[in-house]
Amino acid sequence: MNQVDLNCDLGESFGHYVIGNDEAVLPLISSANVACGFHAGDYSEMRRTVLRAKKNRVAIGAHPGLPDLKGFGRREMDITPTEIYDMIVYQIGALQAVAAAQKVDLNHVKPHGALYHMASDQKKYADAVVQAVHDVAPNLLLFGMDGTYLTTAGENAGLHVVYEAYADRTYQPDGSLTPRSQADALITDTDQALQQVLEMLREGTVTTVAGRKTKVRAETICVHGDGAAALAFAATIREALQTRGIKIDSWKK
Amino acid sequence: MNQVDLNCDLGESFGHYVIGNDEAVLPLISSANVACGFHAGDYSEMRRTVLRAKKNRVAIGAHPGLPDLKGFGRREMDITPTEIYDMIVYQIGALQAVAAAQKVDLNHVKPHGALYHMASDQKKYADAVVQAVHDVAPNLLLFGMDGTYLTTAGENAGLHVVYEAYADRTYQPDGSLTPRSQADALITDTDQALQQVLEMLREGTVTTVAGRKTKVRAETICVHGDGAAALAFAATIREALQTRGIKIDSWKK
Amino acid sequence: MNQVDLNCDLGESFGHYVIGNDEAVLPLISSANVACGFHAGDYSEMRRTVLRAKKNRVAIGAHPGLPDLKGFGRREMDITPTEIYDMIVYQIGALQAVAAAQKVDLNHVKPHGALYHMASDQKKYADAVVQAVHDVAPNLLLFGMDGTYLTTAGENAGLHVVYEAYADRTYQPDGSLTPRSQADALITDTDQALQQVLEMLREGTVTTVAGRKTKVRAETICVHGDGAAALAFAATIREALQTRGIKIDSWKK
Amino acid sequence: MNQVDLNCDLGESFGHYVIGNDEAVLPLISSANVACGFHAGDYSEMRRTVLRAKKNRVAIGAHPGLPDLKGFGRREMDITPTEIYDMIVYQIGALQAVAAAQKVDLNHVKPHGALYHMASDQKKYADAVVQAVHDVAPNLLLFGMDGTYLTTAGENAGLHVVYEAYADRTYQPDGSLTPRSQADALITDTDQALQQVLEMLREGTVTTVAGRKTKVRAETICVHGDGAAALAFAATIREALQTRGIKIDSWKK
Repeated sequence: MNQVDLNCDLGESFGHYVIGNDEAVLPLISSANVACGFHAGDYSEMRRTVLRAKKNRVAIGAHPGLPDLKGFGRREMDITPTEIYDMIVYQIGALQAVAAAQKVDLNHVKPHGALYHMASDQKKYADAVVQAVHDVAPNLLLFGMDGTYLTTAGENAGLHVVYEAYADRTYQPDGSLTPRSQADALITDTDQALQQVLEMLREGTVTTVAGRKTKVRAETICVHGDGAAALAFAATIREALQTRGIKIDSWKK
Repeated sequence: MNQVDLNCDLGESFGHYVIGNDEAVLPLISSANVACGFHAGDYSEMRRTVLRAKKNRVAIGAHPGLPDLKGFGRREMDITPTEIYDMIVYQIGALQAVAAAQKVDLNHVKPHGALYHMASDQKKYADAVVQAVHDVAPNLLLFGMDGTYLTTAGENAGLHVVYEAYADRTYQPDGSLTPRSQADALITDTDQALQQVLEMLREGTVTTVAGRKTKVRAETICVHGDGAAALAFAATIREALQTRGIKIDSWKK
Repeated sequence: MNQVDLNCDLGESFGHYVIGNDEAVLPLISSANVACGFHAGDYSEMRRTVLRAKKNRVAIGAHPGLPDLKGFGRREMDITPTEIYDMIVYQIGALQAVAAAQKVDLNHVKPHGALYHMASDQKKYADAVVQAVHDVAPNLLLFGMDGTYLTTAGENAGLHVVYEAYADRTYQPDGSLTPRSQADALITDTDQALQQVLEMLREGTVTTVAGRKTKVRAETICVHGDGAAALAFAATIREALQTRGIKIDSWKK
Repeated sequence: MNQVDLNCDLGESFGHYVIGNDEAVLPLISSANVACGFHAGDYSEMRRTVLRAKKNRVAIGAHPGLPDLKGFGRREMDITPTEIYDMIVYQIGALQAVAAAQKVDLNHVKPHGALYHMASDQKKYADAVVQAVHDVAPNLLLFGMDGTYLTTAGENAGLHVVYEAYADRTYQPDGSLTPRSQADALITDTDQALQQVLEMLREGTVTTVAGRKTKVRAETICVHGDGAAALAFAATIREALQTRGIKIDSWKK
């Protein structure tokens, strides 16, 4: 592929609490995953984030999460699929309205944190997420990882799936991410991260921790904006890709 | 007028907590004001309420409120108009999506409780509410009382305003409601309530507590579903109006 | 044993939302488990519940739960043991102050819902709960089921453990409760329930679903106040036990 | 007076959200007002804050606030005095338990933000706050401003009142603070702030914006830890006071 999307979680501030460097990371990315007030963000921050993304010509997506501000949506909860469906409908709708009021459209949906993992790993949650997107905004792109229940369910439902991959995480032989609890989960060397992304884009494979290559689809790369190191990492990846003739842009719905 | 709308607040249950008799009141009304998860209701209750209203052919409206589940949205908060704007955009959007997923459209917006009072009494809040409706769903009907900042701002912005009146509340000489803190605020006699509604519809006036008539526009009457007495009251008013040739129906956007 | 405690979850109303029949169940029980504002209840309801319990000479205990009002504390969350420790310290302290302001003392602690299950089934959570009770109020009784990590940890820490058993739930051969997902989980026949309690008190055993007896310690029986059937059930059990010379009273710390 | 207390609001972080420089400001102050989870802070942050204060030998006080994390407890709500009473009892109790678990005692109570203003300006709220402190922990010091309903009610109830004054705010002729909405509300010049504090301590007066002196009691000075400028300001005031022989220490209950 000679095009890739760079996405980042934005709009995570809440009330007087500030998280992230949204202004700094926006020029580096092509898709913004906007928190919808459940795991992070609030109705005012959503408006500000939509405006910032619009100004930077960055595509806007809903980033729905579990109703757990305290845990930042990162811890799994034993919730029914129906409730997952309902909370995703609600959050997408809320952001759609915020965007409409600012005269922009949503482009994608990416579940956040524990919800992303639950929908990747469990069919019942994948189906709930996909049904919600299907029922509310079937033209939105669905971000998810190759080989998960989430993207499989999305494809089966006829959604436009965009495959997400990671520059800074290592992969297991089965194509899944190495759990963060393991020592070799993170890639901190920028060159190594860049090589991983280039292999993904050029060959459609990733070299796993076991040393062998496995197939992986990489259409959007998740980057981070929290801290100077993350910003530098994103900037380096972006520039290196562009230098090699790869266009950084969001996919169109 | 030979038509009037009957509206009622619905969908106020939350999680395991149940409030109201939604199933019982739905056959009696023509417009349902659906709580949007801030002062009451939740994402699942919203879906259930939309489905119930659809089944009963009752028009569905957003009933946005202050972010105060503990106080049921009934106590005023010193919030900025911008924040009011943001929270109304958010809540309308959330319900729009819930309704869209069930293949129905919203028909109106009615602010809840303290938010309704704040927008009636203070221009800055009226403007915020109206701007939110204008920016997100300008074709939705706006419910509000005659002679308030809310309906004046709505008219000025070109919204379709539907004037709300009360069967069970007495009026002051200036056309405002008698505060609940006063002894003669409530009308508990069904005949008296019916006469008040009939005067409103036929003559466009209400007889105030001072004994004189004042002009009032009454296009939708607010009824209640909490308790057997409220349900009987609503049923009696409904039947008496129909007997006199007045059609009970929602206004069309 | 010729004494047994009857405990019930109380104070679960929140703001304008009412759950339970606290006034009706209080004369039937000897220990009230008071919700502490996380999974149910609020600061005002706690005061009212403490006063009601005091008036009925019913012992008062803290009933801490997960921070999940929406789910009523009934769904498990992947929370760290440290956070469990912190939230229990917080909730016990809050209720201690409410009780102190009304000049009564707490007598016990019983974790609620998912927290009760997590502490029963996983050592890390049992240790967190026990450490919290130990650090804040080591003289309080700890309610838990025989054969669980919770009561084992409590005994090891030197807490005064009171063993809880169920009149309306069947038991598995290992002494655990039959999961609610199974058809034979509940005992709805009052006589059968009474026989189960009497066997527990007289013989220290329970007849499991497999037909054999297994040892079980039953010092406090959990009853329910939600609905007329539950109240009648509790009243019948209470009277039948008293008729047989068994004293209904809370255990003293 | 040759002793003064320096107090600062601490423990305002929530979940993954960080506010303040608690580690940096603790060596500069003698009393920490610890957020109790309503307007800011959470059960885990409370434990960490208590431990940090203990390590720095700083006195610990409860800093109860309105239940409004979104607004950081800074906006007034039309809440009943009974509810104010209940929420203060609850919050003090929660922090008492957190402190007890770490083997330290609370020393004072200072209401936060809008609650501080409501209790300063309205007798009904002052009475509610004082009654709560009286009923739960009558030996705790109550922080409040001279000439307010809060301190008057505290004195009348026999509480040990500690009078709070400001180094960085100007005063009106009646001894009240100049509202922040006015241009001359803040003192940004460190020398001017220091002179104001010294006049308060030595003469028991403050020079108001009108140029005349009015009586003011200053036993504890409120400082801030948010940002380098605030920290430098606090450090300068502290050192200048010590240089002049004034001891910086908390008052003992």
